Amino acid sequence: MTANTHEYYLKKAIALAVDSVQRGGGPFGAVIVRDGKVVAEAWNQVTAQHDASAHAEVAAIRKAGAALGRHHLDDCVLYASCEPCPMCLATALWAHIPRIYFAAPHSEAARVGFADTHIAEQLYGQARPVALTEGLVSQLKVPDASMPFEAWLARVDRVEY
Amino acid sequence: MTANTHEYYLKKAIALAVDSVQRGGGPFGAVIVRDGKVVAEAWNQVTAQHDASAHAEVAAIRKAGAALGRHHLDDCVLYASCEPCPMCLATALWAHIPRIYFAAPHSEAARVGFADTHIAEQLYGQARPVALTEGLVSQLKVPDASMPFEAWLARVDRVEY
Repeated sequence: MTANTHEYYLKKAIALAVDSVQRGGGPFGAVIVRDGKVVAEAWNQVTAQHDASAHAEVAAIRKAGAALGRHHLDDCVLYASCEPCPMCLATALWAHIPRIYFAAPHSEAARVGFADTHIAEQLYGQARPVALTEGLVSQLKVPDASMPFEAWLARVDRVEY
Repeated sequence: MTANTHEYYLKKAIALAVDSVQRGGGPFGAVIVRDGKVVAEAWNQVTAQHDASAHAEVAAIRKAGAALGRHHLDDCVLYASCEPCPMCLATALWAHIPRIYFAAPHSEAARVGFADTHIAEQLYGQARPVALTEGLVSQLKVPDASMPFEAWLARVDRVEY
């Protein structure tokens, strides 16, 4: 696989998600790329850090902001192993991230017990954002997109949140 | 004013918001209370920490989680100087916070240049959440609710975000 393609970065996000499960965290990973370089790699740390906001995407946005020394990331692309939840999406909007690619759909997170879809329905009145800018968020099919969730289900001592 | 009332904690959140502007941050403050005790006080640190996610409410949720050693805050009440934006609201939902009180409406934040309403419209298709649980979020009128915004507008060197 060629480096610096969307698929390359999504596979990196998926690998971070699988690693996260091995560390005892949730099955989610994210990567932020600027000008062909990775500026942040992150994974879910909700239970590890006792922090409900520490989803992979939010953690990546924090890391990228710290690395670049600014709160706006308008020249960055966010790659997420799974479709961003309402919190992550709103955080990306505040950070002015112009492009987001994800691998697994939110229904995969819901399948293994996460509340993403339930929270979306309370806020949006439906599973997906109502009037998001066209082209901001795109799914790209990647072969191993379900791997983090299978690792999660296989882990009997998983801590749900 | 009696301690331990909703108004008491909202006034505390407003005072944190005014202090935040003096420190060079955004005009927002938040307090988390559990069993009559303040477990977290926080203010907006987006520009100070180069962190788009560092709204007062999110910062308070992170502090409360760290203080209590858990990611769920289902026995806590969140008091915010202003109506929580979509990011803060989604974070509160992930944290299982059952009651949120705020002082100023989101239109006040919009009036002084913040994107809360614009982001809400992209996600919700309207200014407010579509199907939020009845009673989760309530506005309480507090006399000084506009004070943080006036302090913000008065500050000519304010850093917008």
